[in-house]
Amino acid sequence: MTALLYFEDLSVGQKFRSAFVEMTAESIISFARENDPQYFHLDAEAAKDSMFGGLVASGWQTAALSLRLLVEGSGVTFAGGVVGVDAHISWKRPVRPGDRLRAECEITKLAESPSRRDGGFASFFGSTFNQHEKVVQNLQATMLVRRRSGPEQ
Amino acid sequence: MTALLYFEDLSVGQKFRSAFVEMTAESIISFARENDPQYFHLDAEAAKDSMFGGLVASGWQTAALSLRLLVEGSGVTFAGGVVGVDAHISWKRPVRPGDRLRAECEITKLAESPSRRDGGFASFFGSTFNQHEKVVQNLQATMLVRRRSGPEQ
Repeated sequence: MTALLYFEDLSVGQKFRSAFVEMTAESIISFARENDPQYFHLDAEAAKDSMFGGLVASGWQTAALSLRLLVEGSGVTFAGGVVGVDAHISWKRPVRPGDRLRAECEITKLAESPSRRDGGFASFFGSTFNQHEKVVQNLQATMLVRRRSGPEQ
Repeated sequence: MTALLYFEDLSVGQKFRSAFVEMTAESIISFARENDPQYFHLDAEAAKDSMFGGLVASGWQTAALSLRLLVEGSGVTFAGGVVGVDAHISWKRPVRPGDRLRAECEITKLAESPSRRDGGFASFFGSTFNQHEKVVQNLQATMLVRRRSGPEQ
């Protein structure tokens, strides 16, 4: 069952935790072909000679997937979607085919939007883990989230 | 003609400037379907009711494209590819079908890697512009770039 969340439903300290998703060589190569065509994201054989020693996912794929896991895969749905304002990403470890990733995050700040009555800013700190419980990525981000109603005047 | 660049070829203040690329509805929807399936990235008709008033590209697509433009589209090739260490992204304006984007960046810092003799860290500040010369995204990032040889001992 999925709860529909608005800005008013969020609170600082609130945590979200996603399910696992498995990264496949196919999805890594498919993403890279369109968005980040470097040889260590495209060709498992050639990637053996890279600093990674094998095929690894583009960091952009891990970033997008992590947010998707949190937005879609944690049993909640944000009404009207979420819109990125800014993001700070640190890539900590390679993501390889067969890795199983999950993400968790905690809301760190909530702020009214000075210009929009229909949304507010939610900041969070999140980490993406592999199946060995090692952090592969940290992500701090601020999102614009839909309000149920305009703020009280 | 493409120059093959190594860490030793970079200097603080050095600028890179890409060619333009046009964003199509097809590429926006295709990226979103795989990586960021929100209705304002997927469905031009439904997106009219969103805060954007129409179809817009996922911020992750703009981020990945900007780096690709800089790495591939500025007449240089980094030997051995570039590997993201961290990135700070601010999304400033929506990117819509038909927009023509270009990116430019300036190297802000170069640092030896304490752990790798075959690479060094290059930080840059970059902006992505649309055809109206408006900034759609700012990106500060640090990349690991291959060295031609190990540092002098």
